[in-house]
Amino acid sequence: MDVIAENKSHGGRQLVIRHAATTTQCDMTFALFLPPGEGPFPVLWYLSGLTCSHANVMEKGEYRQIAAELGVAVICPDTSPRGDHVPGGDPADWQFGQGAGFYVDATEAAYRDHFQMHSYIMHELPELVFAHYPLDSARQGIFGHSMGGHGAMVLALRNPGVFKSCSAFAPITQPSTAGWSQRAFSEYLGPDKAAWRAWDTVCLIEDGARVEALLVDQGDADAFLEEGLRPQLLAQACTDAGIDLTLRMQPGYDHSYFFISSFMADHLRWHARYL
Amino acid sequence: MDVIAENKSHGGRQLVIRHAATTTQCDMTFALFLPPGEGPFPVLWYLSGLTCSHANVMEKGEYRQIAAELGVAVICPDTSPRGDHVPGGDPADWQFGQGAGFYVDATEAAYRDHFQMHSYIMHELPELVFAHYPLDSARQGIFGHSMGGHGAMVLALRNPGVFKSCSAFAPITQPSTAGWSQRAFSEYLGPDKAAWRAWDTVCLIEDGARVEALLVDQGDADAFLEEGLRPQLLAQACTDAGIDLTLRMQPGYDHSYFFISSFMADHLRWHARYL
Repeated sequence: MDVIAENKSHGGRQLVIRHAATTTQCDMTFALFLPPGEGPFPVLWYLSGLTCSHANVMEKGEYRQIAAELGVAVICPDTSPRGDHVPGGDPADWQFGQGAGFYVDATEAAYRDHFQMHSYIMHELPELVFAHYPLDSARQGIFGHSMGGHGAMVLALRNPGVFKSCSAFAPITQPSTAGWSQRAFSEYLGPDKAAWRAWDTVCLIEDGARVEALLVDQGDADAFLEEGLRPQLLAQACTDAGIDLTLRMQPGYDHSYFFISSFMADHLRWHARYL
Repeated sequence: MDVIAENKSHGGRQLVIRHAATTTQCDMTFALFLPPGEGPFPVLWYLSGLTCSHANVMEKGEYRQIAAELGVAVICPDTSPRGDHVPGGDPADWQFGQGAGFYVDATEAAYRDHFQMHSYIMHELPELVFAHYPLDSARQGIFGHSMGGHGAMVLALRNPGVFKSCSAFAPITQPSTAGWSQRAFSEYLGPDKAAWRAWDTVCLIEDGARVEALLVDQGDADAFLEEGLRPQLLAQACTDAGIDLTLRMQPGYDHSYFFISSFMADHLRWHARYL
């Protein structure tokens, strides 16, 4: 484990850490913000969207001021395995491969050696950070943006009891039927779409998985709203399942970090109530 | 004038605008944040440091939440002229040329056609933005970081009455005697160091220029503190001149935007008292 950057910020410590991961068989980099104080701190996991690394939200997310105020640690993993030996390295295809792990554990032969992002984030990375930093594993929340909003909801739904809270910015609600995720699901999980349901928020809820509550912010000027995100599918599933969804359509906001940062403090305060 | 990006953020509008500038004889790009409301808004000019464009503070500065709350517009110009036809385009030399305009009006033949950043920011850019946006030219403040902290103080000292307030993050206090600015001063202003004094905060104060008050934050873990920044020179000059300097040494903070963003809200609140 190698701390490759450390900067004091808002009274706390913003770390960037690289380590050799066994689940993904490559070096992985993540960001960890520790608020001021001794801890142990509750932990908020932030999962980023397509094309992102740990750095996008660390630089543009504006989470440190409020996280420092609330005393919450924030961990921002990468979105996929990376490296010359990792398949899916075509930078022209931003919806597949490196930068587009979709937080699943791949089963197809071509990808299963590396694309194990669910296992990495649920098991390997927590074991690492809880062993080395003053973090409270009994108080964890999870949130994310777009593909990472999908990831946050899927991880919370698949792992009941681990996360006390879950929220999302502009999440992909049903990736198994959205154009920009179908290639990834097909190549990571195989052609049998029945297997895709276990990695899809709306399908998981339809099939009985539950979280207590969800907070979702969605810009109504988001270019991906109708084709890729479709919050109405999530709203219907939550209504049918009795999940307490707070869905806020935010007028004039798009899909960028200008949107995310505008509502970051709201999300952190919402999580802090559960943590 | 071409609005090349517009994003809603924190209830306001973050614009990026490109225009053909006559003072610098090239296309110039700047960022303009308009808070919610109709205006006219007071204006805060933020000048960035070496290597930066308008984008660094726009992405990492965390100014929008507090600017929206206070109802202040924030303008972030580029740090130099740019383009294939502009000299000083060697990316290996980050202390000179493109990205390193030092907010002076060059007098040397090789640079004076383009490196007119003082005139650009004091005259051409204000004329443009005040003509097109609901901004109040009677309520302007200026601040900046490192080379931009130097720029903010020099512009305030050289143009009495224009700016109601001035502050800086880790400013270069005496560029005429600092290693990283001497090449630029020499090539833009010529070998006669007497001419450099008119573009140097400490020298301007020594020579009689005044501002009412200054707020300066400086990290004590800043790698450039002793050689390049030297806040003690500013403190001595302000003491001798009777300028009300609030110099805050911030323990553990470095030279990065992790530092700047930590104290951005303090600076905006401080300016708002004068605007």
